[in-house]
Amino acid sequence: MNNDLNIQQYIEHYAHLVEQELPEAFPSEWYIPDPLKQSMLYSLMAGGKRLRPILLISAAEALGGNAEAALKMSCAVEMIHTYSLIHDDLPAMDNDDYRRGKLTNHKVFGEALAILAGDGLLTHAFHSIAQVAREFRLDAEQALSIVEELSAFSGARGMVGGQAADIQGEQGLTQLSELEYIHVRKTSDLIVFSLRAGGRIAGANERQLAALETFGHHIGLAFQIQDDILDLIGDEHKLGKPVKSDEKQHKVTYPYFIGIDESRRKMLELTEAGKEAIRTEIPDPRRLLQIADYLLLRDH
Amino acid sequence: MNNDLNIQQYIEHYAHLVEQELPEAFPSEWYIPDPLKQSMLYSLMAGGKRLRPILLISAAEALGGNAEAALKMSCAVEMIHTYSLIHDDLPAMDNDDYRRGKLTNHKVFGEALAILAGDGLLTHAFHSIAQVAREFRLDAEQALSIVEELSAFSGARGMVGGQAADIQGEQGLTQLSELEYIHVRKTSDLIVFSLRAGGRIAGANERQLAALETFGHHIGLAFQIQDDILDLIGDEHKLGKPVKSDEKQHKVTYPYFIGIDESRRKMLELTEAGKEAIRTEIPDPRRLLQIADYLLLRDH
Repeated sequence: MNNDLNIQQYIEHYAHLVEQELPEAFPSEWYIPDPLKQSMLYSLMAGGKRLRPILLISAAEALGGNAEAALKMSCAVEMIHTYSLIHDDLPAMDNDDYRRGKLTNHKVFGEALAILAGDGLLTHAFHSIAQVAREFRLDAEQALSIVEELSAFSGARGMVGGQAADIQGEQGLTQLSELEYIHVRKTSDLIVFSLRAGGRIAGANERQLAALETFGHHIGLAFQIQDDILDLIGDEHKLGKPVKSDEKQHKVTYPYFIGIDESRRKMLELTEAGKEAIRTEIPDPRRLLQIADYLLLRDH
Repeated sequence: MNNDLNIQQYIEHYAHLVEQELPEAFPSEWYIPDPLKQSMLYSLMAGGKRLRPILLISAAEALGGNAEAALKMSCAVEMIHTYSLIHDDLPAMDNDDYRRGKLTNHKVFGEALAILAGDGLLTHAFHSIAQVAREFRLDAEQALSIVEELSAFSGARGMVGGQAADIQGEQGLTQLSELEYIHVRKTSDLIVFSLRAGGRIAGANERQLAALETFGHHIGLAFQIQDDILDLIGDEHKLGKPVKSDEKQHKVTYPYFIGIDESRRKMLELTEAGKEAIRTEIPDPRRLLQIADYLLLRDH
Protein backbone atom coordinates (compact mmCIF):
# COMPACT_ATOMS: atom_id res chain seq x y z
CA MET A 1 0.00 0.00 0.00
CA ASN A 2 1.05 3.58 -0.69
CA ASN A 3 3.84 2.35 -2.89
CA ASP A 4 2.84 4.69 -5.70
CA LEU A 5 3.03 7.84 -3.56
CA ASN A 6 6.10 10.04 -3.78
CA ILE A 7 7.66 10.88 -0.41
CA GLN A 8 5.88 14.19 -0.03
CA GLN A 9 2.52 12.57 -0.77
CA TYR A 10 3.39 9.72 1.60
CA ILE A 11 4.16 12.16 4.42
CA GLU A 12 1.01 14.20 3.75
CA HIS A 13 -1.06 11.03 3.62
CA TYR A 14 0.10 9.87 7.04
CA ALA A 15 0.07 13.34 8.58
CA HIS A 16 -3.58 13.49 7.57
CA LEU A 17 -4.34 10.08 9.06
CA VAL A 18 -2.58 11.05 12.31
CA GLU A 19 -4.64 14.24 12.48
CA GLN A 20 -7.83 12.26 12.03
CA GLU A 21 -6.79 9.90 14.79
CA LEU A 22 -5.57 12.38 17.40
CA PRO A 23 -8.97 13.69 18.60
CA GLU A 24 -10.11 10.06 19.05
CA ALA A 25 -7.36 9.35 21.53
CA PHE A 26 -9.48 10.31 24.55
CA PRO A 27 -12.24 7.76 25.22
CA SER A 28 -15.56 9.39 24.36
CA GLU A 29 -17.18 8.21 27.61
CA TRP A 30 -14.69 10.15 29.74
CA TYR A 31 -15.76 13.37 31.38
CA ILE A 32 -12.99 15.93 30.97
CA PRO A 33 -13.64 19.56 31.99
CA ASP A 34 -14.28 21.42 28.76
CA PRO A 35 -11.65 24.17 29.06
CA LEU A 36 -8.97 21.53 29.72
CA LYS A 37 -10.10 19.44 26.75
CA GLN A 38 -10.19 22.50 24.49
CA SER A 39 -6.72 23.50 25.61
CA MET A 40 -5.27 20.04 24.96
CA LEU A 41 -6.93 19.75 21.54
CA TYR A 42 -5.96 23.29 20.53
CA SER A 43 -2.26 22.44 20.65
CA LEU A 44 -2.65 18.84 19.52
CA MET A 45 -4.48 19.99 16.38
CA ALA A 46 -2.34 23.07 15.71
CA GLY A 47 -0.57 21.49 12.76
CA GLY A 48 3.10 20.71 12.57
CA LYS A 49 4.96 18.18 10.52
CA ARG A 50 3.82 15.11 12.52
CA LEU A 51 7.34 13.88 11.93
CA ARG A 52 7.58 11.66 15.01
CA PRO A 53 4.30 9.78 14.40
CA ILE A 54 5.22 9.29 10.75
CA LEU A 55 8.62 7.87 11.71
CA LEU A 56 6.93 5.47 14.11
CA ILE A 57 4.54 4.32 11.40
CA SER A 58 7.28 4.03 8.79
CA ALA A 59 9.50 2.00 11.12
CA ALA A 60 6.64 -0.41 11.77
CA GLU A 61 5.95 -0.64 8.03
CA ALA A 62 9.63 -1.20 7.27
CA LEU A 63 9.51 -4.33 9.40
CA GLY A 64 6.08 -5.53 8.32
CA GLY A 65 4.22 -4.46 11.48
CA ASN A 66 0.50 -3.78 11.88
CA ALA A 67 -0.07 -0.37 10.26
CA GLU A 68 -3.25 0.43 12.17
CA ALA A 69 -1.68 -0.35 15.54
CA ALA A 70 1.26 1.85 14.55
CA LEU A 71 -1.05 4.70 13.54
CA LYS A 72 -2.90 4.58 16.85
CA MET A 73 0.26 4.32 18.89
CA SER A 74 1.84 7.17 16.96
CA CYS A 75 -0.65 9.50 18.67
CA ALA A 76 1.17 8.86 21.94
CA VAL A 77 4.42 10.33 20.69
CA GLU A 78 2.62 13.36 19.24
CA MET A 79 1.04 13.97 22.66
CA ILE A 80 4.48 13.96 24.25
CA HIS A 81 5.88 16.26 21.57
CA THR A 82 2.90 18.62 21.90
CA TYR A 83 3.07 18.78 25.71
CA SER A 84 6.77 19.62 25.48
CA LEU A 85 6.01 22.52 23.14
CA ILE A 86 3.25 23.87 25.42
CA HIS A 87 5.52 23.81 28.46
CA ASP A 88 8.55 25.14 26.52
CA ASP A 89 6.52 28.13 25.33
CA LEU A 90 5.47 29.18 28.86
CA PRO A 91 6.59 32.58 30.14
CA ALA A 92 8.86 30.92 32.71
CA MET A 93 10.56 28.96 29.92
CA ASP A 94 11.03 30.36 26.38
CA ASN A 95 8.16 32.86 26.70
CA ASP A 96 6.92 32.49 23.14
CA ASP A 97 3.69 34.09 21.92
CA TYR A 98 3.53 32.24 18.62
CA ARG A 99 4.10 28.67 17.52
CA ARG A 100 3.55 27.52 13.93
CA GLY A 101 2.00 30.90 13.20
CA LYS A 102 -0.69 30.52 15.88
CA LEU A 103 -0.90 31.92 19.37
CA THR A 104 0.75 29.65 21.92
CA ASN A 105 -1.44 27.71 24.34
CA HIS A 106 -1.00 29.99 27.35
CA LYS A 107 -1.74 33.08 25.25
CA VAL A 108 -5.15 31.58 24.46
CA PHE A 109 -6.03 29.62 27.62
CA GLY A 110 -3.87 31.21 30.30
CA GLU A 111 -0.83 29.79 32.03
CA ALA A 112 -2.60 27.55 34.51
CA LEU A 113 -4.56 25.66 31.86
CA ALA A 114 -1.50 25.48 29.62
CA ILE A 115 0.46 23.78 32.38
CA LEU A 116 -2.41 21.36 33.01
CA ALA A 117 -2.99 20.70 29.31
CA GLY A 118 0.67 19.73 29.06
CA ASP A 119 0.36 17.48 32.10
CA GLY A 120 -2.79 15.91 30.69
CA LEU A 121 -1.26 15.18 27.28
CA LEU A 122 1.92 13.80 28.82
CA THR A 123 -0.06 11.52 31.10
CA HIS A 124 -2.40 10.36 28.37
CA ALA A 125 0.39 9.20 26.07
CA PHE A 126 0.94 6.22 28.35
CA HIS A 127 -2.75 5.41 28.31
CA SER A 128 -2.68 5.27 24.52
CA ILE A 129 0.15 2.77 24.53
CA ALA A 130 -1.67 0.46 26.94
CA GLN A 131 -4.92 0.80 24.99
CA VAL A 132 -3.32 0.04 21.64
CA ALA A 133 -1.55 -2.96 23.14
CA ARG A 134 -4.86 -4.33 24.36
CA GLU A 135 -6.85 -3.53 21.21
CA PHE A 136 -4.30 -5.10 18.86
CA ARG A 137 -3.22 -7.88 21.21
CA LEU A 138 0.39 -6.79 21.08
CA ASP A 139 2.82 -8.79 23.14
CA ALA A 140 2.45 -7.30 26.65
CA GLU A 141 6.19 -7.49 27.34
CA GLN A 142 6.89 -5.47 24.18
CA ALA A 143 4.22 -2.95 25.18
CA LEU A 144 5.78 -2.57 28.62
CA SER A 145 9.15 -1.98 26.97
CA ILE A 146 7.53 0.75 24.87
CA VAL A 147 6.18 2.34 28.08
CA GLU A 148 9.61 2.11 29.69
CA GLU A 149 11.37 3.62 26.68
CA LEU A 150 8.87 6.44 26.25
CA SER A 151 9.53 7.38 29.85
CA ALA A 152 13.31 7.11 29.53
CA PHE A 153 13.59 8.99 26.23
CA SER A 154 11.13 11.74 27.11
CA GLY A 155 11.86 12.15 30.84
CA ALA A 156 14.69 13.45 33.02
CA ARG A 157 17.27 11.25 31.26
CA GLY A 158 16.00 12.40 27.86
CA MET A 159 13.93 15.27 26.55
CA VAL A 160 13.13 16.89 29.90
CA GLY A 161 16.83 16.67 30.80
CA GLY A 162 17.68 18.37 27.52
CA GLN A 163 15.28 21.18 28.22
CA ALA A 164 16.71 21.64 31.71
CA ALA A 165 20.25 21.78 30.29
CA ASP A 166 19.04 24.22 27.64
CA ILE A 167 17.68 26.58 30.28
CA GLN A 168 20.86 26.36 32.31
CA GLY A 169 22.84 26.87 29.10
CA GLU A 170 21.25 30.23 28.44
CA GLN A 171 23.79 31.55 30.87
CA GLY A 172 26.34 30.60 28.21
CA LEU A 173 27.55 27.34 26.71
CA THR A 174 31.23 27.23 25.97
CA GLN A 175 31.56 23.91 24.20
CA LEU A 176 29.95 22.28 21.18
CA SER A 177 29.61 19.04 23.14
CA GLU A 178 27.27 20.78 25.59
CA LEU A 179 25.09 22.01 22.73
CA GLU A 180 25.13 18.56 21.18
CA TYR A 181 23.93 17.03 24.45
CA ILE A 182 20.99 19.46 24.44
CA HIS A 183 20.12 18.82 20.80
CA VAL A 184 20.30 15.05 21.17
CA ARG A 185 18.18 15.01 24.32
CA LYS A 186 15.65 17.57 23.14
CA THR A 187 15.23 16.27 19.61
CA SER A 188 16.89 12.94 18.83
CA ASP A 189 15.59 11.10 21.88
CA LEU A 190 11.91 11.32 21.00
CA ILE A 191 12.71 10.45 17.38
CA VAL A 192 14.68 7.43 18.57
CA PHE A 193 11.76 6.42 20.76
CA SER A 194 9.37 6.69 17.83
CA LEU A 195 11.50 4.48 15.60
CA ARG A 196 12.10 1.86 18.29
CA ALA A 197 8.40 1.80 19.20
CA GLY A 198 7.49 1.25 15.55
CA GLY A 199 10.08 -1.51 15.44
CA ARG A 200 8.72 -3.10 18.61
CA ILE A 201 5.17 -3.14 17.21
CA ALA A 202 6.61 -5.16 14.33
CA GLY A 203 8.53 -7.47 16.68
CA ALA A 204 11.98 -6.14 15.74
CA ASN A 205 15.00 -7.93 17.17
CA GLU A 206 17.71 -6.16 19.21
CA ARG A 207 19.99 -5.59 16.20
CA GLN A 208 17.16 -3.99 14.27
CA LEU A 209 16.19 -1.82 17.24
CA ALA A 210 19.80 -0.68 17.57
CA ALA A 211 19.92 0.17 13.85
CA LEU A 212 16.72 2.22 14.13
CA GLU A 213 18.19 3.96 17.16
CA THR A 214 21.39 4.93 15.32
CA PHE A 215 19.31 6.18 12.40
CA GLY A 216 17.12 8.27 14.75
CA HIS A 217 20.01 9.62 16.76
CA HIS A 218 21.72 10.88 13.61
CA ILE A 219 18.75 12.29 11.71
CA GLY A 220 17.49 13.89 14.95
CA LEU A 221 20.72 15.78 15.43
CA ALA A 222 20.79 16.70 11.72
CA PHE A 223 17.22 17.99 12.08
CA GLN A 224 18.17 20.19 15.01
CA ILE A 225 21.26 21.58 13.29
CA GLN A 226 19.02 22.49 10.38
CA ASP A 227 16.66 24.22 12.81
CA ASP A 228 19.61 26.28 14.00
CA ILE A 229 20.49 27.18 10.41
CA LEU A 230 16.89 28.01 9.46
CA ASP A 231 16.60 30.24 12.49
CA LEU A 232 19.51 32.27 11.11
CA ILE A 233 18.59 32.41 7.43
CA GLY A 234 15.08 31.04 7.05
CA ASP A 235 11.85 32.67 5.90
CA GLU A 236 9.79 34.03 8.81
CA HIS A 237 6.55 33.40 7.01
CA LYS A 238 7.30 29.74 6.36
CA LEU A 239 8.74 29.18 9.82
CA GLY A 240 5.70 30.72 11.54
CA LYS A 241 8.02 32.48 13.97
CA PRO A 242 10.56 35.32 13.77
CA VAL A 243 14.02 34.42 12.43
CA LYS A 244 17.12 35.10 14.49
CA SER A 245 15.04 34.45 17.62
CA ASP A 246 17.91 32.31 18.92
CA GLU A 247 20.33 35.19 18.43
CA LYS A 248 17.97 37.63 20.10
CA GLN A 249 17.54 35.28 23.01
CA HIS A 250 21.32 34.83 23.13
CA LYS A 251 20.92 31.14 22.42
CA VAL A 252 24.04 29.43 21.28
CA THR A 253 23.61 27.40 18.07
CA TYR A 254 25.61 25.06 15.87
CA PRO A 255 26.53 27.84 13.38
CA TYR A 256 27.74 29.95 16.32
CA PHE A 257 30.38 27.33 17.05
CA ILE A 258 31.39 26.11 13.58
CA GLY A 259 29.78 28.44 11.03
CA ILE A 260 26.95 27.82 8.58
CA ASP A 261 28.94 25.92 5.92
CA GLU A 262 30.45 23.51 8.39
CA SER A 263 27.05 23.05 10.06
CA ARG A 264 25.56 22.14 6.69
CA ARG A 265 28.34 19.64 6.05
CA LYS A 266 27.81 18.07 9.46
CA MET A 267 24.09 17.80 8.78
CA LEU A 268 24.67 15.95 5.50
CA GLU A 269 27.26 13.68 7.10
CA LEU A 270 24.90 12.75 9.94
CA THR A 271 22.08 12.00 7.53
CA GLU A 272 24.32 9.69 5.48
CA ALA A 273 25.55 7.88 8.60
CA GLY A 274 21.96 7.46 9.79
CA LYS A 275 20.84 6.02 6.47
CA GLU A 276 23.81 3.66 6.38
CA ALA A 277 22.79 2.18 9.74
CA ILE A 278 19.44 0.90 8.47
CA ARG A 279 20.22 0.17 4.83
CA THR A 280 20.99 -3.50 5.29
CA GLU A 281 19.64 -4.19 8.78
CA ILE A 282 15.99 -3.25 8.12
CA PRO A 283 13.99 -5.39 5.64
CA ASP A 284 12.35 -2.54 3.73
CA PRO A 285 14.02 0.75 4.69
CA ARG A 286 12.94 2.65 1.57
CA ARG A 287 10.50 5.09 3.19
CA LEU A 288 12.78 5.78 6.14
CA LEU A 289 15.65 6.56 3.78
CA GLN A 290 13.39 8.86 1.75
CA ILE A 291 12.23 10.68 4.89
CA ALA A 292 15.86 11.31 5.90
CA ASP A 293 16.54 12.87 2.49
CA TYR A 294 13.27 14.77 2.50
CA LEU A 295 14.13 16.41 5.82
CA LEU A 296 17.27 17.89 4.27
CA LEU A 297 15.15 19.84 1.82
CA ARG A 298 12.77 21.47 4.29
CA ASP A 299 12.61 25.23 4.64
CA HIS A 300 10.54 25.35 7.84
CA MET B 1 5.56 -9.42 59.60
CA ASN B 2 4.83 -6.10 61.32
CA ASN B 3 1.89 -7.65 63.10
CA ASP B 4 3.10 -6.37 66.44
CA LEU B 5 3.23 -2.72 65.35
CA ASN B 6 0.39 -0.40 66.27
CA ILE B 7 -1.01 1.52 63.32
CA GLN B 8 1.06 4.61 63.93
CA GLN B 9 4.24 2.55 64.10
CA TYR B 10 3.14 0.62 61.00
CA ILE B 11 2.66 3.87 59.05
CA GLU B 12 5.96 5.30 60.26
CA HIS B 13 7.72 2.05 59.40
CA TYR B 14 6.50 2.08 55.80
CA ALA B 15 6.88 5.83 55.36
CA HIS B 16 10.52 5.32 56.33
CA LEU B 17 10.97 2.46 53.86
CA VAL B 18 9.36 4.53 51.09
CA GLU B 19 11.72 7.40 51.86
CA GLN B 20 14.71 5.09 51.64
CA GLU B 21 13.47 3.75 48.31
CA LEU B 22 12.54 7.02 46.57
CA PRO B 23 16.06 8.30 45.79
CA GLU B 24 16.87 4.89 44.27
CA ALA B 25 14.09 5.21 41.71
CA PHE B 26 16.33 6.82 39.08
CA PRO B 27 18.85 4.33 37.64
CA SER B 28 22.30 5.31 38.90
CA GLU B 29 23.85 4.98 35.42
CA TRP B 30 21.58 7.71 34.01
CA TYR B 31 22.97 11.14 33.39
CA ILE B 32 20.46 13.73 34.58
CA PRO B 33 21.47 17.41 34.69
CA ASP B 34 22.24 18.15 38.31
CA PRO B 35 19.87 21.11 38.89
CA LEU B 36 16.98 19.05 37.51
CA LYS B 37 17.86 16.09 39.69
CA GLN B 38 18.20 18.31 42.77
CA SER B 39 14.87 19.92 42.06
CA MET B 40 13.07 16.58 41.66
CA LEU B 41 14.65 15.13 44.80
CA TYR B 42 14.01 18.28 46.84
CA SER B 43 10.26 17.86 46.54
CA LEU B 44 10.30 14.07 46.53
CA MET B 45 12.16 14.06 49.85
CA ALA B 46 10.32 16.98 51.46
CA GLY B 47 8.37 14.76 53.80
CA GLY B 48 4.64 14.32 53.84
CA LYS B 49 2.50 11.48 55.05
CA ARG B 50 3.38 9.07 52.21
CA LEU B 51 -0.26 8.04 52.44
CA ARG B 52 -0.67 6.87 48.87
CA PRO B 53 2.41 4.61 48.81
CA ILE B 54 1.40 3.14 52.17
CA LEU B 55 -2.09 2.40 50.88
CA LEU B 56 -0.61 0.68 47.84
CA ILE B 57 1.63 -1.45 50.05
CA SER B 58 -1.18 -2.25 52.50
CA ALA B 59 -3.55 -3.26 49.71
CA ALA B 60 -0.91 -5.62 48.32
CA GLU B 61 -0.32 -7.04 51.81
CA ALA B 62 -4.04 -7.44 52.42
CA LEU B 63 -4.19 -9.78 49.45
CA GLY B 64 -0.90 -11.57 50.07
CA GLY B 65 1.10 -9.77 47.35
CA ASN B 66 4.87 -9.38 47.11
CA ALA B 67 5.74 -6.68 49.66
CA GLU B 68 9.02 -5.67 48.03
CA ALA B 69 7.42 -5.24 44.61
CA ALA B 70 4.68 -3.16 46.25
CA LEU B 71 7.23 -0.99 48.04
CA LYS B 72 9.12 -0.29 44.82
CA MET B 73 5.98 0.38 42.84
CA SER B 74 4.66 2.66 45.55
CA CYS B 75 7.39 5.14 44.60
CA ALA B 76 5.56 5.68 41.30
CA VAL B 77 2.46 7.01 42.98
CA GLU B 78 4.50 9.29 45.24
CA MET B 79 6.19 10.73 42.14
CA ILE B 80 2.78 11.54 40.66
CA HIS B 81 1.58 13.05 43.92
CA THR B 82 4.77 15.09 44.26
CA TYR B 83 4.69 16.40 40.68
CA SER B 84 1.07 17.49 41.21
CA LEU B 85 2.06 19.47 44.30
CA ILE B 86 4.97 21.16 42.49
CA HIS B 87 2.76 22.25 39.60
CA ASP B 88 -0.16 23.21 41.90
CA ASP B 89 2.13 25.49 43.88
CA LEU B 90 3.33 27.45 40.82
CA PRO B 91 2.54 31.18 40.65
CA ALA B 92 0.16 30.59 37.72
CA MET B 93 -1.76 28.05 39.82
CA ASP B 94 -2.13 28.37 43.63
CA ASN B 95 0.97 30.56 44.01
CA ASP B 96 2.11 29.02 47.30
CA ASP B 97 5.45 29.87 48.88
CA TYR B 98 5.40 27.11 51.47
CA ARG B 99 4.49 23.44 51.48
CA ARG B 100 4.86 21.23 54.54
CA GLY B 101 6.72 24.08 56.22
CA LYS B 102 9.39 24.24 53.52
CA LEU B 103 9.77 26.61 50.59
CA THR B 104 7.96 25.37 47.51
CA ASN B 105 9.98 24.03 44.60
CA HIS B 106 9.80 27.14 42.42
CA LYS B 107 10.82 29.37 45.34
CA VAL B 108 14.06 27.38 45.58
CA PHE B 109 14.79 26.39 41.97
CA GLY B 110 12.82 28.91 39.93
CA GLU B 111 9.68 28.37 37.90
CA ALA B 112 11.28 26.81 34.82
CA LEU B 113 13.01 24.06 36.76
CA ALA B 114 9.92 23.50 38.89
CA ILE B 115 7.84 22.90 35.76
CA LEU B 116 10.48 20.52 34.41
CA ALA B 117 10.95 18.73 37.74
CA GLY B 118 7.20 18.07 37.73
CA ASP B 119 7.34 16.82 34.15
CA GLY B 120 10.31 14.61 34.99
CA LEU B 121 8.66 13.04 38.04
CA LEU B 122 5.37 12.50 36.22
CA THR B 123 7.17 10.82 33.33
CA HIS B 124 9.34 8.68 35.55
CA ALA B 125 6.42 7.17 37.44
CA PHE B 126 5.63 5.06 34.38
CA HIS B 127 9.22 3.93 34.13
CA SER B 128 9.09 2.68 37.70
CA ILE B 129 6.02 0.57 36.99
CA ALA B 130 7.65 -1.06 33.98
CA GLN B 131 10.87 -1.65 35.89
CA VAL B 132 9.17 -3.22 38.88
CA ALA B 133 7.14 -5.45 36.57
CA ARG B 134 10.33 -6.71 34.96
CA GLU B 135 12.32 -7.07 38.18
CA PHE B 136 9.60 -9.02 39.99
CA ARG B 137 8.31 -10.85 36.93
CA LEU B 138 4.80 -9.51 37.45
CA ASP B 139 2.23 -10.56 34.91
CA ALA B 140 2.81 -8.14 31.99
CA GLU B 141 -0.94 -7.76 31.34
CA GLN B 142 -1.49 -6.71 34.96
CA ALA B 143 1.44 -4.28 34.73
CA LEU B 144 -0.03 -2.73 31.57
CA SER B 145 -3.35 -2.34 33.37
CA ILE B 146 -1.51 -0.54 36.16
CA VAL B 147 0.03 1.81 33.57
CA GLU B 148 -3.38 2.40 32.01
CA GLU B 149 -5.03 3.10 35.36
CA LEU B 150 -2.28 5.41 36.57
CA SER B 151 -2.79 7.44 33.44
CA ALA B 152 -6.59 7.46 33.71
CA PHE B 153 -6.73 8.29 37.43
CA SER B 154 -4.00 10.91 37.37
CA GLY B 155 -4.64 12.48 33.94
CA ALA B 156 -7.30 14.64 32.30
CA ARG B 157 -10.09 12.28 33.36
CA GLY B 158 -8.79 12.23 36.93
CA MET B 159 -6.45 14.35 39.00
CA VAL B 160 -5.46 16.83 36.27
CA GLY B 161 -9.14 17.24 35.41
CA GLY B 162 -9.89 17.96 39.07
CA GLN B 163 -7.21 20.60 39.20
CA ALA B 164 -8.54 22.22 36.02
CA ALA B 165 -12.07 22.27 37.47
CA ASP B 166 -10.65 23.69 40.72
CA ILE B 167 -9.04 26.58 38.88
CA GLN B 168 -12.20 27.28 36.92
CA GLY B 169 -14.18 27.00 40.17
CA GLU B 170 -12.28 29.84 41.78
CA GLN B 171 -14.67 32.08 39.92
CA GLY B 172 -17.33 30.63 42.21
CA LEU B 173 -18.84 27.18 42.71
CA THR B 174 -22.54 27.21 43.42
CA GLN B 175 -23.21 23.55 44.12
CA LEU B 176 -21.81 20.95 46.47
CA SER B 177 -21.76 18.44 43.62
CA GLU B 178 -19.22 20.59 41.78
CA LEU B 179 -16.99 20.70 44.84
CA GLU B 180 -17.36 16.96 45.29
CA TYR B 181 -16.27 16.38 41.70
CA ILE B 182 -13.12 18.40 42.37
CA HIS B 183 -12.36 16.61 45.65
CA VAL B 184 -12.91 13.16 44.16
CA ARG B 185 -10.76 13.87 41.13
CA LYS B 186 -8.00 15.70 42.98
CA THR B 187 -7.75 13.37 45.95
CA SER B 188 -9.74 10.14 45.71
CA ASP B 189 -8.59 9.18 42.25
CA LEU B 190 -4.92 8.79 43.10
CA ILE B 191 -5.85 6.95 46.30
CA VAL B 192 -8.08 4.61 44.29
CA PHE B 193 -5.24 4.03 41.85
CA SER B 194 -2.86 3.19 44.71
CA LEU B 195 -5.22 0.62 46.20
CA ARG B 196 -6.04 -1.00 42.86
CA ALA B 197 -2.35 -1.14 41.90
CA GLY B 198 -1.55 -2.84 45.21
CA GLY B 199 -4.39 -5.24 44.52
CA ARG B 200 -3.14 -5.95 41.01
CA ILE B 201 0.35 -6.73 42.28
CA ALA B 202 -1.31 -9.37 44.45
CA GLY B 203 -3.40 -10.69 41.53
CA ALA B 204 -6.72 -9.37 42.88
CA ASN B 205 -9.90 -10.34 41.03
CA GLU B 206 -12.37 -7.79 39.66
CA ARG B 207 -14.62 -7.92 42.75
CA GLN B 208 -11.69 -7.26 45.03
CA LEU B 209 -10.47 -4.41 42.81
CA ALA B 210 -13.95 -2.88 42.89
CA ALA B 211 -14.05 -3.16 46.71
CA LEU B 212 -10.67 -1.46 46.99
CA GLU B 213 -11.92 1.24 44.65
CA THR B 214 -15.02 1.93 46.75
CA PHE B 215 -12.87 2.04 49.87
CA GLY B 216 -10.47 4.49 48.22
CA HIS B 217 -13.19 6.67 46.76
CA HIS B 218 -14.82 7.10 50.17
CA ILE B 219 -11.76 7.59 52.34
CA GLY B 220 -10.31 9.93 49.72
CA LEU B 221 -13.35 12.18 49.88
CA ALA B 222 -13.38 11.96 53.70
CA PHE B 223 -9.70 12.93 53.68
CA GLN B 224 -10.39 15.98 51.56
CA ILE B 225 -13.37 17.10 53.67
CA GLN B 226 -11.08 16.88 56.68
CA ASP B 227 -8.54 19.02 54.85
CA ASP B 228 -11.25 21.62 54.37
CA ILE B 229 -12.10 21.48 58.10
CA LEU B 230 -8.46 21.64 59.20
CA ASP B 231 -7.92 24.62 56.96
CA LEU B 232 -10.62 26.42 58.93
CA ILE B 233 -9.76 25.35 62.48
CA GLY B 234 -6.37 23.62 62.36
CA ASP B 235 -3.03 24.49 63.92
CA GLU B 236 -0.82 26.49 61.53
CA HIS B 237 2.33 25.05 63.00
CA LYS B 238 1.21 21.45 62.52
CA LEU B 239 -0.20 22.08 59.08
CA GLY B 240 2.99 23.77 57.87
CA LYS B 241 0.88 26.39 56.11
CA PRO B 242 -1.39 29.27 57.19
CA VAL B 243 -4.93 28.35 58.25
CA LYS B 244 -7.90 29.91 56.52
CA SER B 245 -5.86 30.03 53.31
CA ASP B 246 -8.89 28.67 51.46
CA GLU B 247 -11.03 31.48 52.83
CA LYS B 248 -8.43 34.07 51.96
CA GLN B 249 -8.20 32.67 48.44
CA HIS B 250 -12.00 32.63 48.28
CA LYS B 251 -11.97 28.89 47.82
CA VAL B 252 -15.25 27.21 48.45
CA THR B 253 -15.06 24.28 50.89
CA TYR B 254 -17.30 21.59 52.33
CA PRO B 255 -18.01 23.55 55.55
CA TYR B 256 -18.95 26.54 53.40
CA PHE B 257 -21.82 24.54 51.95
CA ILE B 258 -22.99 22.43 54.89
CA GLY B 259 -21.21 23.75 57.99
CA ILE B 260 -18.50 22.15 60.13
CA ASP B 261 -20.70 19.74 62.11
CA GLU B 262 -22.40 18.34 59.05
CA SER B 263 -19.02 18.09 57.28
CA ARG B 264 -17.68 16.06 60.21
CA ARG B 265 -20.69 13.76 60.10
CA LYS B 266 -20.25 13.25 56.37
CA MET B 267 -16.58 12.44 56.90
CA LEU B 268 -17.39 9.75 59.47
CA GLU B 269 -20.15 8.32 57.30
CA LEU B 270 -17.86 8.07 54.27
CA THR B 271 -15.18 6.37 56.32
CA GLU B 272 -17.64 3.77 57.61
CA ALA B 273 -18.99 3.10 54.12
CA GLY B 274 -15.45 2.73 52.80
CA LYS B 275 -14.52 0.26 55.53
CA GLU B 276 -17.68 -1.73 54.94
CA ALA B 277 -16.76 -2.24 51.28
CA ILE B 278 -13.57 -4.15 52.06
CA ARG B 279 -14.47 -5.86 55.36
CA THR B 280 -15.58 -9.14 53.79
CA GLU B 281 -14.24 -8.86 50.24
CA ILE B 282 -10.56 -8.50 51.09
CA PRO B 283 -8.81 -11.47 52.79
CA ASP B 284 -6.91 -9.50 55.43
CA PRO B 285 -8.26 -5.93 55.53
CA ARG B 286 -7.03 -5.16 59.06
CA ARG B 287 -4.36 -2.59 58.21
CA LEU B 288 -6.52 -0.84 55.62
CA LEU B 289 -9.33 -0.53 58.18
CA GLN B 290 -6.89 0.82 60.76
CA ILE B 291 -5.52 3.38 58.29
CA ALA B 292 -9.06 4.62 57.56
CA ASP B 293 -9.64 5.15 61.29
CA TYR B 294 -6.21 6.65 61.81
CA LEU B 295 -6.85 9.28 59.14
CA LEU B 296 -9.86 10.53 61.12
CA LEU B 297 -7.58 11.43 64.01
CA ARG B 298 -5.04 13.49 62.09
CA ASP B 299 -4.52 17.15 62.89
CA HIS B 300 -2.40 18.03 59.84
